[in-house]
Amino acid sequence: MPYVNIKITDEGVTSEQKRQLIKGTTELLVKVLNKNPNTTFVLIEEVNTDNWGIGYQSVTELRQADS
Amino acid sequence: MPYVNIKITDEGVTSEQKRQLIKGTTELLVKVLNKNPNTTFVLIEEVNTDNWGIGYQSVTELRQADS
Amino acid sequence: MPYVNIKITDEGVTSEQKRQLIKGTTELLVKVLNKNPNTTFVLIEEVNTDNWGIGYQSVTELRQADS
Amino acid sequence: MPYVNIKITDEGVTSEQKRQLIKGTTELLVKVLNKNPNTTFVLIEEVNTDNWGIGYQSVTELRQADS
Amino acid sequence: MPYVNIKITDEGVTSEQKRQLIKGTTELLVKVLNKNPNTTFVLIEEVNTDNWGIGYQSVTELRQADS
Amino acid sequence: MPYVNIKITDEGVTSEQKRQLIKGTTELLVKVLNKNPNTTFVLIEEVNTDNWGIGYQSVTELRQADS
Repeated sequence: MPYVNIKITDEGVTSEQKRQLIKGTTELLVKVLNKNPNTTFVLIEEVNTDNWGIGYQSVTELRQADS
Repeated sequence: MPYVNIKITDEGVTSEQKRQLIKGTTELLVKVLNKNPNTTFVLIEEVNTDNWGIGYQSVTELRQADS
Repeated sequence: MPYVNIKITDEGVTSEQKRQLIKGTTELLVKVLNKNPNTTFVLIEEVNTDNWGIGYQSVTELRQADS
Repeated sequence: MPYVNIKITDEGVTSEQKRQLIKGTTELLVKVLNKNPNTTFVLIEEVNTDNWGIGYQSVTELRQADS
Repeated sequence: MPYVNIKITDEGVTSEQKRQLIKGTTELLVKVLNKNPNTTFVLIEEVNTDNWGIGYQSVTELRQADS
Repeated sequence: MPYVNIKITDEGVTSEQKRQLIKGTTELLVKVLNKNPNTTFVLIEEVNTDNWGIGYQSVTELRQADS
């Protein structure tokens, strides 16, 4: 029954990494709360760096400042 | 005043189907809770099948196993 | 596979009304998108009227103005 | 620590407007609740007008009716 | 049409502060995007400090370490 | 920068289990995506079993049928 929503910036996350996130999250919920994996949802949302802000700035701005 | 968020996989949902989901959801909230349709939001989010996991796997993997 | 999140104000929604929302929403997704009801989640969140704003005001303020 | 999620229709929002939304939202949380801007997230999600419903209709339909 | 969801820890936020968050957020969306305040939703969700994690720990643990 | 939202039914989840979910989720994001734990949010939301539906029914109804 758990629903897990993972929001990350869209900075090149591979399909393999997504599989690891799905598998790892499901394993955690089974281990800690004994949940049924067949009704455990894991949704990954990739957010554009223009659209994610922290410390008054967008991640796009932060990345430009870092580079 | 209701806000409804519908997340589904991005597997070819048509504009007509979206209209039906919006209309049907709004009708349900008017019927059951007597809500004002003019301040009833229905948002549909289509999620890539790589990004939706169930039973340790992504929907992409499940679909491949089914085919 | 659908995940539906319904946010409404916490103004006395009964268990029976919640059942109707869950049943009606699931029926709609089965009818329109042929989804599997056994992996269709419907989550209802009841929000305090202090915590819901529209038109610059909280719903608590709006209700007081109406009464 | 705040997490703010802003959902708007994808009707030509510019990067500059996104920066203003991020900056303005963060300033508001610092001013009202004295939160730490460096752990204040602001996420903007742009939703297709087919996918946003209000008053039984999608925003696409409403815009067509207006034009 | 905007929908804004503000999640904060449930550490004594007053009704007055909630009104300021609702008013300020709505003003920002009207100013930056010229949105209609009467269809601008602002929802505030207060999350228990046990239920909010950052840096491997819950906020409850962080507050205890600080005190 | 990740934001993770875990929704589970409010069926007696302990503070210790919440700590394990927070720790485990953060470790996963550090391991798979090399994210900074100090800006990784994990929010746990506990949902009343009346308010969570699956297979046309609320979890309350399902639990009653099971018992």
